[in-house]
Amino acid sequence: MAATRTDLANAIRALAMDAVQKANSGHPGAPMGMAEIGLALWGGKMRFNPQNTAWANRDRFVLSNGHGSMLQYALLHLTGFDVSMDDIKNFRQFHSKTPGHPEVHYTPGVETTTGPLGQGITNAVGFALAEKLLAAQFNKPGLDIVDHHTYVFMGDGCLMEGISHEACSLAGTLGLGKLVAFWDDNGISIDGHVEGWFTDDTPKRFESYGWHVIAGVDGHDVDALNAAIDAAKAETNKPTLICCKTIIGKGSPNKAASHDCHGAPLGDAEIAATREAIGWPYAPFEIPADVYAGWDRKAAGAAFEAEWNTLFAKYAAQFPTEAAEFTRRMKGDLPANWNDIVAAAVSDANSKAETIATRKASQNALSALCPSVPEMLGGSADLTGSNLTNWKGSTSLKVENGQISGNHISYGVREFGMSAIMNGIVLHGGFRPFGGTFLMFCEYALNALRMAALMKTNNIFVYTHDSIGLGEDGPTHQPIEQLQTLRCIPNMNTWRPCDTVESVVAWAAAIGERTTPSSLVFTRQNLQFQARTEQQLADIAKGGYVLVDAANPQLLILATGSEVDLAVKAAAQLQAEGVAVRVVSMPSTNVFDKQDAAYKASVLPAGVPRLAVEAATSDFWRKYVGLEGDVIGMDTFGESAPANLLFKHFGFSVENVVARAKALLK
Amino acid sequence: MAATRTDLANAIRALAMDAVQKANSGHPGAPMGMAEIGLALWGGKMRFNPQNTAWANRDRFVLSNGHGSMLQYALLHLTGFDVSMDDIKNFRQFHSKTPGHPEVHYTPGVETTTGPLGQGITNAVGFALAEKLLAAQFNKPGLDIVDHHTYVFMGDGCLMEGISHEACSLAGTLGLGKLVAFWDDNGISIDGHVEGWFTDDTPKRFESYGWHVIAGVDGHDVDALNAAIDAAKAETNKPTLICCKTIIGKGSPNKAASHDCHGAPLGDAEIAATREAIGWPYAPFEIPADVYAGWDRKAAGAAFEAEWNTLFAKYAAQFPTEAAEFTRRMKGDLPANWNDIVAAAVSDANSKAETIATRKASQNALSALCPSVPEMLGGSADLTGSNLTNWKGSTSLKVENGQISGNHISYGVREFGMSAIMNGIVLHGGFRPFGGTFLMFCEYALNALRMAALMKTNNIFVYTHDSIGLGEDGPTHQPIEQLQTLRCIPNMNTWRPCDTVESVVAWAAAIGERTTPSSLVFTRQNLQFQARTEQQLADIAKGGYVLVDAANPQLLILATGSEVDLAVKAAAQLQAEGVAVRVVSMPSTNVFDKQDAAYKASVLPAGVPRLAVEAATSDFWRKYVGLEGDVIGMDTFGESAPANLLFKHFGFSVENVVARAKALLK
Repeated sequence: MAATRTDLANAIRALAMDAVQKANSGHPGAPMGMAEIGLALWGGKMRFNPQNTAWANRDRFVLSNGHGSMLQYALLHLTGFDVSMDDIKNFRQFHSKTPGHPEVHYTPGVETTTGPLGQGITNAVGFALAEKLLAAQFNKPGLDIVDHHTYVFMGDGCLMEGISHEACSLAGTLGLGKLVAFWDDNGISIDGHVEGWFTDDTPKRFESYGWHVIAGVDGHDVDALNAAIDAAKAETNKPTLICCKTIIGKGSPNKAASHDCHGAPLGDAEIAATREAIGWPYAPFEIPADVYAGWDRKAAGAAFEAEWNTLFAKYAAQFPTEAAEFTRRMKGDLPANWNDIVAAAVSDANSKAETIATRKASQNALSALCPSVPEMLGGSADLTGSNLTNWKGSTSLKVENGQISGNHISYGVREFGMSAIMNGIVLHGGFRPFGGTFLMFCEYALNALRMAALMKTNNIFVYTHDSIGLGEDGPTHQPIEQLQTLRCIPNMNTWRPCDTVESVVAWAAAIGERTTPSSLVFTRQNLQFQARTEQQLADIAKGGYVLVDAANPQLLILATGSEVDLAVKAAAQLQAEGVAVRVVSMPSTNVFDKQDAAYKASVLPAGVPRLAVEAATSDFWRKYVGLEGDVIGMDTFGESAPANLLFKHFGFSVENVVARAKALLK
Repeated sequence: MAATRTDLANAIRALAMDAVQKANSGHPGAPMGMAEIGLALWGGKMRFNPQNTAWANRDRFVLSNGHGSMLQYALLHLTGFDVSMDDIKNFRQFHSKTPGHPEVHYTPGVETTTGPLGQGITNAVGFALAEKLLAAQFNKPGLDIVDHHTYVFMGDGCLMEGISHEACSLAGTLGLGKLVAFWDDNGISIDGHVEGWFTDDTPKRFESYGWHVIAGVDGHDVDALNAAIDAAKAETNKPTLICCKTIIGKGSPNKAASHDCHGAPLGDAEIAATREAIGWPYAPFEIPADVYAGWDRKAAGAAFEAEWNTLFAKYAAQFPTEAAEFTRRMKGDLPANWNDIVAAAVSDANSKAETIATRKASQNALSALCPSVPEMLGGSADLTGSNLTNWKGSTSLKVENGQISGNHISYGVREFGMSAIMNGIVLHGGFRPFGGTFLMFCEYALNALRMAALMKTNNIFVYTHDSIGLGEDGPTHQPIEQLQTLRCIPNMNTWRPCDTVESVVAWAAAIGERTTPSSLVFTRQNLQFQARTEQQLADIAKGGYVLVDAANPQLLILATGSEVDLAVKAAAQLQAEGVAVRVVSMPSTNVFDKQDAAYKASVLPAGVPRLAVEAATSDFWRKYVGLEGDVIGMDTFGESAPANLLFKHFGFSVENVVARAKALLK
């Protein structure tokens, strides 16, 4: 006899409560409350192949309320992904496939890492945007090789987070019709019943964004959910919010509908009572064969993919170039001649020898590199003309009559939203997103940068107006500690180039990464071009190199960005006074740190006094100059005044560098 | 003849375009577009005294679109504040009263520093919340000594930022009826006409938050604006949004209604054309006497304050204790016996000698200190039971029948909103806000922390779950680089206590600050109590001190928080093996860095090898251990697993500390 829907949903409840109990840690409430929603979507409406998580046209799923990870693990296990019962039993244990929050690359079928609230729905907007744009670029009449939905589960927490506003507002404007979000409306957050702090009329809020809202769905009625999903799919010009009234921890006789079941094990007694109440007589981690059979989607998934494979074969026969390009882009490979393209761009910048702002140099680099990499998808958080993330081949993203086009996104004043949308875009595949704002406002988006690094994505964050060099906008806009903040994110490469050539090398390096995101930091003001030998040109990519040398140097001056030319000028004056000085340009300390010990020692020989110069937090440089060295940095906030005056005031003058250098030699 | 309204509004336009032109930098568009709104509010409806910016019951004003700073400076100058024409002429110059963005403490009449978009409206929610709660605590029948409005100007940028959702949603829930926001609906942001990226139905959005929305007001019609302000004031149970349709740069014949006038000088020719078009024949920085007369609010302001002074005198006569307390709290003074209270709390924690989580120690510290400091206003971003920001005298903030009560705010899942609301609360006066979340999610709020530090406020950010010690929630929740990020914010004191006693000292230090905010970082897991001498107890407040000593130490081990006991145990083992080891506990590197050189040298004598141990970014510690020392830190992301296993895996074991210590001695 086939398992009933009740049995199928209860399998999720049982796995969630038992795994949390065994781990003695975790969140049973959301999985138990969303079991029927999981069944409607994963058990029927969603198109995926459990046996090939890389199938390009699979529907994407995001558990934005990532603390409910056992819901996702249960669904993956039951539908046939490579998540075994032993994996479920190892919930939250070291190096298991089932960590505390869902992590992409850890668990087959997990599309993005969630837990930090609000970012999952925002990633999902990125997935849906990537799908829409990729479809526009590749689909041909009758050959819709890109045609899938993006589904999101989210709770009240995601809806309270500001980033949900940024993402959902933009999703409405862009008409992302294949985005379908389920709101787990259980009226509970960690502090209790939400009435005291969350009284939004959420359907009305989403209507104000231009969404298709299906209100008042019983989240425990699979037929109602199926009908809502059908209605969502029928609306192709607007994203859909399905508002699901649910009971958190449903099934638990004494803890359902209370925050007691949100983030702690139910306890053995309550689990036993729940088994009794829901009619689930099986032992922990025991799933009857008929329940497995009812959930199994391996055959359906294989059929979905086979159907698409046939379609893609037809496409490839008619459009072989496009098919190869689609395959390349989805694999994330760069064009075969990439190294030549980079070499030409570096050579060109070197021969032009321009003294311009590095934000302008960045734009030139984009113009040199992007024509060969059409997957580059630029954007800015409403500072396009300041960040210069547009380039001569840029066209603004727009949606007209439901048709999307363009390769540069005006994200609006939404730094965090932009960054987490970029994370979704890159995880979808087919695009290499980059997006800009002022360096200061990396702070609005910081956790999305960290998530990019944690997820081993390779997107590119562009930050201009990098220091007091922006001048009159004053301390609210003048970065001090932000460079250090970015540099210390594990697996993030931060670059702060000193001129046109370092700028193009930084871009090439960032584009060349596969599992590491980059933050590229540029100036508002002009920076002096630096002449280099061929060896020096090659060494830039090592993150730090000798730019000016002297025989047997008595002093090393380390600098980045706008302070490199200052170091060069000070070195010249010191050399003129008979002091042998080496200048080390360090555009990326992160990349330099990854070089072998011999190279690092060749650049920074032991025993030679060191002076670092950077218009940013000085403490950072102690890792290179030690306690005996000196740092000319910024450890106070800036001021509102013209840039030249500020640099001088804060000690960034040849005179001061020379004086501090001499003091070190005494 | 009295100046016309047109003349009065045009005075703002002229000052804005001329000052921006002279500075060759700035934003003329918003001031010119909002001139009539400025006139309606500042020229009539708002109650303030230009000659006493400290008057407790003044209406508060926030320019959330802070780039339009010349609007505020023009209003301050024209209405009679201590902002002279010379100050206007020095717009954006070094140390002028008129910096690029409005900065509190720089310019008389500026209530908060704005520029980072969305934070101004959020500060304003804090002002309005402080007003409502202070009124509930102090007003007596017929004696409403706290009774003022909070007005905000904001543009599309603020409305796109996610934080506007967090703040405005909560403001609606709390029914902040004296909050009145003006939306400068000019349809323009930096990337151009907003249709491509911002199509919210904003009135509907704010209605979904429970706001009173006045839609469709002509922002250039002073009568219509006055009527809207009256209607806003008449609605006392809901915040009001006045939607003002305006033309950016209004008056400029060729640049109005375009983003060309947003953030750059109009240019001499366009300024001349504007003068002609608006009928303003005066020279730059010339304001005719009748225009000054029309704007002057000194007499009205003095009358407002005199009226209140009479009321307050009556209040003081009837309620002398409350009046004295009100005065104390608005001045920001601590109770006279504060030092005794702290001493008793420290002594009590020391004698109890409890081994508990420092988050629990933090809660105990609150229970010990808060009864004497009723201005302490706690809260959490929906993690009250995890952060333990509540204490035994806490009552939850609630609004019933329009009446507000309580001293602990469930802010909802709104970390950035909470933090910037706290900034507004503390700037209002009368409260000392503190608010908690997990340490990881300081990243969601980071720029608000920076703004707190820049504004020299003294609010307190509470961060629990401080490291891999939180265990199974995994890398999305395990802080690594966040301690370093917080420590490097200029003018922020970060504390990471190692036990109950350091926790209460950290709280006392944070409460004792006047112009420096603090971040207090606590564990989820239990930490061993450390025994101390009286001298050691006294030295904790210096941020770093010798916790375990040896004669002529051969090695210094520096540690914080959960790693202190590890250092102590490793030191014991090393001592047993004949190695003389000193353990330095460094609960606040920021505070330690401010000590005099002699003290610092006494704790960290030169020439003795140093080993730092902290489950966080290792680079930070190079400032103390130099290139020759060693650091046991975390430079990768964490993992999802039980905490004890993680500590051991990542090298935080006695065995590893001993081994690394010995390696240093070779």
